[in-house]
Amino acid sequence: MQQVNLGIVGGGTVGGGVYQAVERNGALMASRLGVQLAVARVAVRDLQKKRPVKIPARKLTTHWREVVEDPAVQLVIELMGGTETAREVTLRAFELGKPVVTANKALISKHGEELFAAAQKHGVNFYYEASVAGGIPIIKVLREGLIGNRIARLYGILNGTCNYILTRMKREGAAYADVLADAQRLGYAEAEPSLDVDGLDALHKAGILASLAHGFWVNPKQIHVAGIRRIEQLDIQFAEKLGYTIKLLAVIKRGEGGNGKCPPIQVSVCPTLVPNTHVLASVNEVFNAVFVRGDIVGDTLYYGRGAGQDATASAVLSDLADAALDLKFGGQNRIPPFVPHERDGSVLPLAHVVTPFYVRLTVLDQPGVMAKVATILAENQIGISSVIQPEGHEGKRVPLILMIHDAPYAAMQRALQQISKLPVVKGKPVLYPVEHFD
Amino acid sequence: MQQVNLGIVGGGTVGGGVYQAVERNGALMASRLGVQLAVARVAVRDLQKKRPVKIPARKLTTHWREVVEDPAVQLVIELMGGTETAREVTLRAFELGKPVVTANKALISKHGEELFAAAQKHGVNFYYEASVAGGIPIIKVLREGLIGNRIARLYGILNGTCNYILTRMKREGAAYADVLADAQRLGYAEAEPSLDVDGLDALHKAGILASLAHGFWVNPKQIHVAGIRRIEQLDIQFAEKLGYTIKLLAVIKRGEGGNGKCPPIQVSVCPTLVPNTHVLASVNEVFNAVFVRGDIVGDTLYYGRGAGQDATASAVLSDLADAALDLKFGGQNRIPPFVPHERDGSVLPLAHVVTPFYVRLTVLDQPGVMAKVATILAENQIGISSVIQPEGHEGKRVPLILMIHDAPYAAMQRALQQISKLPVVKGKPVLYPVEHFD
Repeated sequence: MQQVNLGIVGGGTVGGGVYQAVERNGALMASRLGVQLAVARVAVRDLQKKRPVKIPARKLTTHWREVVEDPAVQLVIELMGGTETAREVTLRAFELGKPVVTANKALISKHGEELFAAAQKHGVNFYYEASVAGGIPIIKVLREGLIGNRIARLYGILNGTCNYILTRMKREGAAYADVLADAQRLGYAEAEPSLDVDGLDALHKAGILASLAHGFWVNPKQIHVAGIRRIEQLDIQFAEKLGYTIKLLAVIKRGEGGNGKCPPIQVSVCPTLVPNTHVLASVNEVFNAVFVRGDIVGDTLYYGRGAGQDATASAVLSDLADAALDLKFGGQNRIPPFVPHERDGSVLPLAHVVTPFYVRLTVLDQPGVMAKVATILAENQIGISSVIQPEGHEGKRVPLILMIHDAPYAAMQRALQQISKLPVVKGKPVLYPVEHFD
Repeated sequence: MQQVNLGIVGGGTVGGGVYQAVERNGALMASRLGVQLAVARVAVRDLQKKRPVKIPARKLTTHWREVVEDPAVQLVIELMGGTETAREVTLRAFELGKPVVTANKALISKHGEELFAAAQKHGVNFYYEASVAGGIPIIKVLREGLIGNRIARLYGILNGTCNYILTRMKREGAAYADVLADAQRLGYAEAEPSLDVDGLDALHKAGILASLAHGFWVNPKQIHVAGIRRIEQLDIQFAEKLGYTIKLLAVIKRGEGGNGKCPPIQVSVCPTLVPNTHVLASVNEVFNAVFVRGDIVGDTLYYGRGAGQDATASAVLSDLADAALDLKFGGQNRIPPFVPHERDGSVLPLAHVVTPFYVRLTVLDQPGVMAKVATILAENQIGISSVIQPEGHEGKRVPLILMIHDAPYAAMQRALQQISKLPVVKGKPVLYPVEHFD
């Protein structure tokens, strides 16, 4: 049986997981694939470090070049994280004519276009299933399983850390800071959590999915992003009263029309009210889910663990199988890493995005407040669909919750600026979009 | 750009859907694939019939050989249904060195092994994504996305007609016969519904999934199947009281151990109590879902429309893309239709399957009934986990519901036979397995 020798760059959680998975199921994969995968070399940061996964010392090195440039290594697996050295590793492998498998969403998000071009120039392939939604084979599903579909809608819960925090905040009525501290203790959140909780990790993934779904490379700088740091228990509870759950939701929507051109695409990642009756409201803990509506297939959903050693390893193994078959059958350009096919593609500016909203104001409980707020909204052509005004004590601060019909972000933000200046309105208004999945 | 000429055999709902989908999204697919798909010929039953999808008359023929044997046709799409002519069509295409795409689960179930061997002999490929779970790309997910995983558990809601009927029975409290009649009127059920409601269609699909997941060809005759004809409203309601929903569930479980050999696999399709808290309980209407637990990836779920013109067309398009790439890159043996890799694989006989059960007896409401029933269960080493005994009128017939701890089918059936002979027990006991997904 043909053998393919692998070089792994990165011996941390994911690298160790991939090494272990190849050891465990390599024989099974060989029987399914007709190709034997064998790890030849592994680059790690520290040779002395005790690893939960045993890797023979002769395979270890601290220099990534000794992996990538080893003539025995046919296929490079980049699992080191970060973007700059990872870029170097990938480019060097391409120069040597070696395909690369990566789990690095930040790398793809930041240097994707350059790396795709380099792969093409050197006639090798680049695989990145593990970069989005962990164990869910969503890249394969989008590029192959749904290849016959125009993707009308794609919604994703793409960050396990945020989903874990929001799940516990809702279940336990706990504050964000307390759940975050607990998540850090349990290893579900990093000591420096901003990549997750500020929505950047989900943004990287949303950009990759949007690009694949719509055939033009979406610049991550054009994607509206808001994280979960400022979500208050009060909003989780009011949302629940209204029949919604707050999720950090990636929304990728194709507009209508376009006159033959590609209409602008809405791409955003922000806390969003999801109706409790929708399946995405039930995606809890560290799980991810991607909901895809194709123009032919209709609604489909894909669900699984979004991160962690094993889920990521499963996705890397899937790429290794494709890469091994491409090496065996000479199909390195069979499915290129990215095929741009919408020359007119563009991202809809946030100001033009039209959506229903949830608004929470803090107001003084006195007569006429609602009239003043409603007048400003009406002047901005914004319609109210429902109101919750809990009973308070005259003259004291109380929350005022407004559910808003479809409105453009620009109009909504303008109205809220005006509302904020009312003397009866205290503090900053809270604004979240509402998604009805229609 | 390279062009691949398609020949479609079958101009009914699915055939028309595929023709329409290629017309609609062929250019999009070409831009993604680098190959242009073009329908060259279509074999239909009746040239005169008015079709909702317009196909130019010059492409139509009533003879399948004129499609398959047309030298211009490079790829055959078998969408005629049935098993005998479909087998002939497929074998003839293989003889001519033409790959075949099919949506025909009955064909694969009945003649799969012969057709796989013929494809291999003639060095062509055979694609059947559309044969299981419609628009959900579950064949690709199992064979490629999860290739690195041993599949510990696979659960499927695989028949849209049954799921539609059960959904409405539960929602509306309606009787089976009434909902079936309505489903027939709406086109969700055939005039002769037995293929669906007796579980045979789900059985075909379960056999294909079990074979792919476990690497040996599962003989459909060895799969335990029970349909939904006998499900009574009473059982749906008692299940709900206990926190369960009755679904027609395919269960494919790998046993533990095996001493290096493949342990026997449980494969069954029958009405099953699913806890309301499990996501599969929320899969309603005509939707299908497949829940897959891999030893590396953990729990994953795939959801979408299981049948119908468009969902099936989407799956056929995915196969056409793979087939076109295989033609372009000469990879016709890249992913063979079936790779047997577990020589010791076998199906666990039903008698040995151990599961919790739901039992409904019809008994006379008189003192001592429960003691007699409980004694027989105890003598068969069967434990009761809970009982519902609604208040009745002394001497009248009342239902008696028992939830049973894990027990082998053989013991359960033996005990029920003995219980049925008690003078206080009237009618046939109702027995459904309960699935806890652990």
